[in-house]
Amino acid sequence: MFDQRIAALEYVRQNKEQSLKLLETFLSIPSISTEPANQPDMQRAAYWVAAQLSGLGMQNVEIFPTARHPVVYAEWLGAHPRTAGAGGAPTVLIYGHYDVQPADPLDRWQTGPFEPTVRGESLYARGASDMKGQVVAVMKAVEAIVKSGDLPVNLKWLIEGEEEIGSPSLEAFIAEHKNLLACDFALNPDAGMIGPEDPTITYALRGLAYFELRVFGPASDLHSGIYGGVVHNPANALAELIAGMHDAEGRVTLPGFYDKVRPLSKEERAELARLPTDEKHFLEQTGAPALYGEAGFTPAERAGARPTLDVNGMLSGFTGAGSKTVIPAWAMAKISMRLVPDQDPADVAKQFYAYLEARASKDIRWEVTEMHGGTPSISDRNNAGVRAMAATLESVWGKQPYFRREGGSIPVVAQMQRVLGIESVVAGFGLPNDNVHAPNERLHLPTWYMGIEAFIHFFINLGS
Amino acid sequence: MFDQRIAALEYVRQNKEQSLKLLETFLSIPSISTEPANQPDMQRAAYWVAAQLSGLGMQNVEIFPTARHPVVYAEWLGAHPRTAGAGGAPTVLIYGHYDVQPADPLDRWQTGPFEPTVRGESLYARGASDMKGQVVAVMKAVEAIVKSGDLPVNLKWLIEGEEEIGSPSLEAFIAEHKNLLACDFALNPDAGMIGPEDPTITYALRGLAYFELRVFGPASDLHSGIYGGVVHNPANALAELIAGMHDAEGRVTLPGFYDKVRPLSKEERAELARLPTDEKHFLEQTGAPALYGEAGFTPAERAGARPTLDVNGMLSGFTGAGSKTVIPAWAMAKISMRLVPDQDPADVAKQFYAYLEARASKDIRWEVTEMHGGTPSISDRNNAGVRAMAATLESVWGKQPYFRREGGSIPVVAQMQRVLGIESVVAGFGLPNDNVHAPNERLHLPTWYMGIEAFIHFFINLGS
Repeated sequence: MFDQRIAALEYVRQNKEQSLKLLETFLSIPSISTEPANQPDMQRAAYWVAAQLSGLGMQNVEIFPTARHPVVYAEWLGAHPRTAGAGGAPTVLIYGHYDVQPADPLDRWQTGPFEPTVRGESLYARGASDMKGQVVAVMKAVEAIVKSGDLPVNLKWLIEGEEEIGSPSLEAFIAEHKNLLACDFALNPDAGMIGPEDPTITYALRGLAYFELRVFGPASDLHSGIYGGVVHNPANALAELIAGMHDAEGRVTLPGFYDKVRPLSKEERAELARLPTDEKHFLEQTGAPALYGEAGFTPAERAGARPTLDVNGMLSGFTGAGSKTVIPAWAMAKISMRLVPDQDPADVAKQFYAYLEARASKDIRWEVTEMHGGTPSISDRNNAGVRAMAATLESVWGKQPYFRREGGSIPVVAQMQRVLGIESVVAGFGLPNDNVHAPNERLHLPTWYMGIEAFIHFFINLGS
Repeated sequence: MFDQRIAALEYVRQNKEQSLKLLETFLSIPSISTEPANQPDMQRAAYWVAAQLSGLGMQNVEIFPTARHPVVYAEWLGAHPRTAGAGGAPTVLIYGHYDVQPADPLDRWQTGPFEPTVRGESLYARGASDMKGQVVAVMKAVEAIVKSGDLPVNLKWLIEGEEEIGSPSLEAFIAEHKNLLACDFALNPDAGMIGPEDPTITYALRGLAYFELRVFGPASDLHSGIYGGVVHNPANALAELIAGMHDAEGRVTLPGFYDKVRPLSKEERAELARLPTDEKHFLEQTGAPALYGEAGFTPAERAGARPTLDVNGMLSGFTGAGSKTVIPAWAMAKISMRLVPDQDPADVAKQFYAYLEARASKDIRWEVTEMHGGTPSISDRNNAGVRAMAATLESVWGKQPYFRREGGSIPVVAQMQRVLGIESVVAGFGLPNDNVHAPNERLHLPTWYMGIEAFIHFFINLGS
């Protein structure tokens, strides 16, 4: 194995330019899962993934249709899978997603979101970090190993197209294909590192509940002079409802919101306190004038281990240049909650309705659309995959990895726990300032190349 | 004079179709004063007005440029103006504006806002009621009188192009042209009737203070999973600021906001209570599920005689279809206050800043743009013009007019009081359900034709 490891590492070092070019072709496909207009691009991205996996020598490459966007599956099982009780090579299920977030506001991008561009040490494009770059890193690691000999582990690939809309089709897909997806554990590189010098394994993920709230008042826009003072302005009413969703301590006021939140243990708080993500870190990363959040918790705890509520978008009335003296007929806000174990998105939806029923006044009407949800998760840190990844990261970066709770949501981790009974190794090579979900998303290329090498070590370590 | 009155009335009755066609040509000009893109249309509308006034035999027709949009002036002084202490014909200054509000949301219009269309008894177009229809009604009345003999009064015309953006250039223009504009009183048809059977004279108008408030948080949009819980979301922060601008009793909380509000006298409250604008009226006109407003006042008092605060527009983050899990970098609201005597827009701006300084937290930044303001006014109901108009309305509708306080703002009324020392007769023929400032603005044509006849009576009565 030693020769293969050396050869594989040498191969990726010789082929950096080709790796970058391959990623750029993937990034040029605007596979925005939430936009109906990008439906053909979603198909194109799925075919692109299938073509790459075929090119790596994977077998049974198949594109499974779902209600929305297809799942790409592939496998290579030539390394003598483990049987019950016996030794042999493990089977790793590689999870990824080929869809990306919308790119607006477009005018804030320095270069087109789907025109990948290298500036300085980074590659700029929507999906560069989240997570086409991570998917291509695994592909390139596998390619390097295959070019240098046989794969020492069995691989299965599950690359979906709905992660950025909450993976609505995935749980049913997993349940229907339990045997196909049977494995020892999953590798999920959809969460990144704390910093370029800080190798990181994510052991807990927040869930999500996402709603669109519309408030209706008068039948039509009204003249604010003639009618100001007799109707409840829907924009004001919406603002009042949103303001009431937090108390003065930054706590969410939805009834029962914290009931199922698992308290942080002393040990976990001590471990989170060791993370380099202190107040200064978050101030630098966000550029906010000051931090904010739930009283009684540190920033790292608030961002990873406590539930939150945020407005993601808001629209009402006249928003053009200049002034228009109107009472708008309606107002809209997109509102989402990040959830932690053991909150459940369905419970939170009920709490959201209960809040609105209790707080909305009778002089307006409201409507809620449930957009998507995801269950939070927390993983066993002692499974073989996590141990192999920890050893790998230590050998590549020369220091023990951080274990952290991640604020983002990867619903598939909880789904795989629940349906397949497997843990995930959640470790990718994005960085906190990659501007994911924001304009000028980017990928730090030196870290990305180290990530490809880390995946090579990981697979070869697993097979040793 | 009797013969001239009969002849003039007969003339307008014979020429209804031509009157409508003329109005339609005016309405087809998209003279939106707040939109830079409509600058050429503003010029075109000013020329259109000048051409009509020339056609009526007016003299010294002139287009005065201002910092934004030109003022059209014209006069006819052949009826022997009054001199100090002596008799003679009065000089009436006719005020109007040729600009209109923006037309969005465009998709809510049944027919194009600048494609005037008759449906049922109404003419639909932006500006039909506010106030191109009113300006053309005066023009048609003057035309009918001129066609039937000599004008019995002296006329001056001041038709501006900035009313819908708060008349920012007008006060300076009036101050610079005091002699040119010298007159006995002004006729201002920019406020309408309570109902088609309810002739109305408006004796008080609310003022306006209009602001754009922007709240800034993180340097760029952030992933709501990674950063939710550590920064103050600007959309949530804006909602909290807006919510705090009213207390539980519907009162505005800006510090000192009510200090200069002139209390309603017993007599005035009794008179306002006689208006047919009761709760049922406002529910029908607005289509709101229930009314809302400051505790302790009737709907008619709240809409006309009490100050208010409304959000006119609101924008933040992702507002497209679907979901995007983002903490927006900024949030914006357009917020305006309707003012009553003796509030002052400059004071209110200071109160707005004071509120924000006291309430905005240090974890966000905010910026305010002052859009425009207008001083509220209250008029002497015993001047000659008001008495002539009251007699006119009674003769045309067969009932005494209502005297009401109007919720809308016409800054020029206060400006003329202050600079020229004259009162205005504020009486036009729009109706409350004309959808002014809203989609499907319309003009009730039977009322409009009666309005033209009323103006004929008014001018002939004044000269008798």
